[in-house]
Amino acid sequence: MISEGMKALVAGSSVIRAMFEEGKKMAAQYGAENVYDFSLGNPSTPPPVAVKEAIKQVLDEENPNLVHGYMNNSGYEDVRDLIAKSLNKRFDTAFETKNIVMTVGAAGGLNVILKTIINPGDEVMTFAPFFGEYKNYVSNYGAKLVPVPPTRADFQPDAAEFEKYVTPLTKAVIINTPNNPTGVVYTEESIKAVAAVLSRKEAEYGHSIFIISDEPYRELVYGNVEVPYLTKYYKNTVVGYSYSKSLSLPGERIGYLVIPSEVDDFEDMIAAAGVATRILGFVNAPSLIQRAVAKCLDEKTDINVYDENRKLLYNALTEYGFECVKPDGAFYLWVKALEEDDKAFVAKAKELHLLLVPGSSFGGPGYVRIAYCVSKDMIERSLPAFKKLADMYR
Amino acid sequence: MISEGMKALVAGSSVIRAMFEEGKKMAAQYGAENVYDFSLGNPSTPPPVAVKEAIKQVLDEENPNLVHGYMNNSGYEDVRDLIAKSLNKRFDTAFETKNIVMTVGAAGGLNVILKTIINPGDEVMTFAPFFGEYKNYVSNYGAKLVPVPPTRADFQPDAAEFEKYVTPLTKAVIINTPNNPTGVVYTEESIKAVAAVLSRKEAEYGHSIFIISDEPYRELVYGNVEVPYLTKYYKNTVVGYSYSKSLSLPGERIGYLVIPSEVDDFEDMIAAAGVATRILGFVNAPSLIQRAVAKCLDEKTDINVYDENRKLLYNALTEYGFECVKPDGAFYLWVKALEEDDKAFVAKAKELHLLLVPGSSFGGPGYVRIAYCVSKDMIERSLPAFKKLADMYR
Repeated sequence: MISEGMKALVAGSSVIRAMFEEGKKMAAQYGAENVYDFSLGNPSTPPPVAVKEAIKQVLDEENPNLVHGYMNNSGYEDVRDLIAKSLNKRFDTAFETKNIVMTVGAAGGLNVILKTIINPGDEVMTFAPFFGEYKNYVSNYGAKLVPVPPTRADFQPDAAEFEKYVTPLTKAVIINTPNNPTGVVYTEESIKAVAAVLSRKEAEYGHSIFIISDEPYRELVYGNVEVPYLTKYYKNTVVGYSYSKSLSLPGERIGYLVIPSEVDDFEDMIAAAGVATRILGFVNAPSLIQRAVAKCLDEKTDINVYDENRKLLYNALTEYGFECVKPDGAFYLWVKALEEDDKAFVAKAKELHLLLVPGSSFGGPGYVRIAYCVSKDMIERSLPAFKKLADMYR
Repeated sequence: MISEGMKALVAGSSVIRAMFEEGKKMAAQYGAENVYDFSLGNPSTPPPVAVKEAIKQVLDEENPNLVHGYMNNSGYEDVRDLIAKSLNKRFDTAFETKNIVMTVGAAGGLNVILKTIINPGDEVMTFAPFFGEYKNYVSNYGAKLVPVPPTRADFQPDAAEFEKYVTPLTKAVIINTPNNPTGVVYTEESIKAVAAVLSRKEAEYGHSIFIISDEPYRELVYGNVEVPYLTKYYKNTVVGYSYSKSLSLPGERIGYLVIPSEVDDFEDMIAAAGVATRILGFVNAPSLIQRAVAKCLDEKTDINVYDENRKLLYNALTEYGFECVKPDGAFYLWVKALEEDDKAFVAKAKELHLLLVPGSSFGGPGYVRIAYCVSKDMIERSLPAFKKLADMYR
């Protein structure tokens, strides 16, 4: 009795559940310490201590009806104001309270902005490989996801290739940098080239095309790499942010959208985003945690932990002969499978108790994603298995 | 640049915003103590102290990566287990962990179950007057809301009238008891009569028709009134619950769905509800508050406060000559307007600084909704204005 649309999704999700169940079985059979699960993008570092203190402070000092009550569907005004100011300080932008809409994580924010702008039949583009959920989010509103295949060895967006896929039906482009699954941070040059194509196409077609910048990994960058703030490169840019990774709060479902004043039809856009938040059933981002994160805007989880994992795994894998794109951000490695069929390669890896995700789940066949948001200890224990895997293909 | 579907909604929401802004202006002009705002269904009682203690206990005693992390999309298993057991104890049901899906409030839960079962073109019924958002929720999935007009003076569902509106396209019926906006609690007799019609229609059409029982007001009943637990009267019943009113936590967005094992295609239904939770962008109900409410299942806000308001206002209004349906639950009075046009009546009330909501917003023209989740003091101050309003129509 489930809907037609859900049938395929349920079948797909059963496959993932089956994988997950098998991982648990393997742990029971071989001992948890002998199974190396690199499949999940679940933060492994704890939230900063400041988060706990902030929650308690809100509980102790503020009016409980305010702390746990309804507010404007777009969030508490004081919280939105603090976030706008924090962004302005960091990125030299000029956002105000009205530009911020608090959301139920980045996933909630993406759904809100898609509901706001999409007409059934529209196309929404993204760059492959991409976070597989985009397809579902876009389909929720009757639009079609159009992935641009990767052409560059460094997995930067290729503006010339991109242009070939833009059509009069293109309503938006989802850009995800630092990228899941590649770990690549898009350069300013890449962003500018994509923005130039879009500006030209907006003029040609006579309607707006939005960039939706999905930024849950913004704070997870290593070395001196800069992540360009996309509103500065293209007028019709909406940013979706989440505290899931930066504060290790993925279960709390807290993030925000930035809808800059310069986007076309700003007043309608911001009103519609508020209405979309309400009617999609979010109503508002969870209240207590809104107030708590506002006290933690300068905090972030200890990313040195991820950085050590990144170096350890990247150096080992490349030493064993794996080809891996240089990972500047997020907590993923994007590694070329040692045979054409990434699913067959993942099956071989599993024989060595290595749980990886096939690239085809991200629209990137021939690769695998390795999530290194795990314990350093597990990585160390897993290395002989990776070496053996490489040796199997020699 | 907003979508076609959002344009009408934004226009509608501007009217409500304009009302809200005007209320604020009136408060500034006449003094907040001289404006009587009965328009919002926002709990006025504080959450039980146990909620604050529970949150702190979770923060102090549990692993922060668990407390703030991802869990199964349907929620923490231990939380779901405690809720199932609590329901079984209260309602003599036999739910298990697998029957409970934690949701982002009741609004989130309704969207999840609608996404789970609705095909575009389906019809979803409800009894007028009804919570206006149902129309939007149903429309999110391409279905049409079919309200059954009220025929009874006591605003109980009329099964004979109901039957006239059931068609082969009917996929579900949303039942909301205690009811917003009438405050009426549907009797066991009413429920049985509606269930009998549905069972007959299921057999006639050869497919399932679901009851979706929307129960945010379940704990808000006065006197010895019983609210029947609908899964006991009809097999294909899904319950949507929220802690927004019972624990005064509307901003926290926490509730659950009950999908009983006996519903048709249970395994698919429960899997699809998990997937719907994920792909609609909820991902999961907020984590910390999930764990906290699990410690407060026997708590509720002090409903004596609402009960006193209810009696005070109901007695005064009926004394002044208003006709009002007997309010056994929720925190609303449903009062007959003193002229045919409820919007004109609301405008006259506003001249006396009484802010009411026209019944036509709930598909119930000729009436107004008065939300008494306000301070007793405000009600007392407002009574002369209500008396004057009645006198204006003599």
